[in-house]
Amino acid sequence: MHQEKILNTPAIRRMPTYLHKLLKMQSEGKVSVSSTELAEYMNIELIVVRKDISLTGISGQRRVGYDVNELIRYIKAYLGWEEKISAVLVGAGSLGTALLGYNDFEHYGFSIEWVFDSSPDKIGRDVYGRTVQDINDMESCFKGQHPEIAVICVSNTAAQKVADKLVAAGIRYIWNFANVSLQVPRGVVVQREVIAGGLAMLAVRRKFEKNMCCEQKDADNTGENIP
Amino acid sequence: MHQEKILNTPAIRRMPTYLHKLLKMQSEGKVSVSSTELAEYMNIELIVVRKDISLTGISGQRRVGYDVNELIRYIKAYLGWEEKISAVLVGAGSLGTALLGYNDFEHYGFSIEWVFDSSPDKIGRDVYGRTVQDINDMESCFKGQHPEIAVICVSNTAAQKVADKLVAAGIRYIWNFANVSLQVPRGVVVQREVIAGGLAMLAVRRKFEKNMCCEQKDADNTGENIP
Repeated sequence: MHQEKILNTPAIRRMPTYLHKLLKMQSEGKVSVSSTELAEYMNIELIVVRKDISLTGISGQRRVGYDVNELIRYIKAYLGWEEKISAVLVGAGSLGTALLGYNDFEHYGFSIEWVFDSSPDKIGRDVYGRTVQDINDMESCFKGQHPEIAVICVSNTAAQKVADKLVAAGIRYIWNFANVSLQVPRGVVVQREVIAGGLAMLAVRRKFEKNMCCEQKDADNTGENIP
Repeated sequence: MHQEKILNTPAIRRMPTYLHKLLKMQSEGKVSVSSTELAEYMNIELIVVRKDISLTGISGQRRVGYDVNELIRYIKAYLGWEEKISAVLVGAGSLGTALLGYNDFEHYGFSIEWVFDSSPDKIGRDVYGRTVQDINDMESCFKGQHPEIAVICVSNTAAQKVADKLVAAGIRYIWNFANVSLQVPRGVVVQREVIAGGLAMLAVRRKFEKNMCCEQKDADNTGENIP
């Protein structure tokens, strides 16, 4: 709770993107990467990349760049992604299906092992290799094993009930895609994912560009340079 | 480009969440809202809420709180969401379908009016009231009208080709859900959406909590207070 001041949110949100790029470079046999290369890929300033990377605690090697394997290790350690984290997903609709098909999760150690839904149309179906199970059978499906993270992809109206069930099953970390503010006991961490957040970013950049254009136009229209 | 330093990314990403809450309050007939109420809903500190809201330029009314209708207007104006923005979505798979079903977009003036795909399985299908059209017919489908924003929901391998097509059709704002860094001409704005960014946030909060627990445990284990 109240970690907004402590956590560097934009930097943390960028970490999987660095990781995605670095894992691709690793698979192509590249051994080192410069911050300039990463800045170009991320489309952000060099100084931002350097600050992001310094968060992981890796020591910079200005001349030769960073060792790809080492940087991957540091980013994974920073995020706590060195080991497998097992997860459960509730809601096998279109968003849930999209998340189950997201290839990068396995590289992050994030393993969605259980999928639940309440709809008879979905129960029993196979989604990317997982069988959708009845949410009412959740406790018995876990059988002593215990997912650490839950992903909620159900409707806004169903989300609180699902969260209550998950918390009752002992889950303490919830990645919530429903557009509701979940009420959970102290000690349970909810990361609310508002898909329109990215649209807001694009919207502000659009407005910014439009204003820039207007200012430019105004400057062009002073008449001073018009022949 | 290079706006990371200028834009308050976390605050902007939170704007749709405020808006979602305020629109709900509006529909319930509530006329005013306090920053405390918003802080509780957002699960962030009061000072962060006040800073976020001050970004919109609204003048605070400490005693009575904010006027709900006015705050909605200010947030919409801040994001440039006062008027309808027409959009095209490419890729009618599970993620594209999830986005087409996202109810809040209409309240933000964000109107996805065209949907394209290249797969014969999908072309002609109805998705939440839009007919999926063949991407090869894109130019003729626009017929003089012009979407301002494009949403890319195709595979990583297809994304660059799709982006090229969209740019050639005159689109300057791209919301990209494919996990690739798109190459676009100067003047085209790409907002890359990395779904794992939220997972990274949850992961860091998880690590943070675990470390806190360990520290707490260590403190408990000094033996000084053990009877």
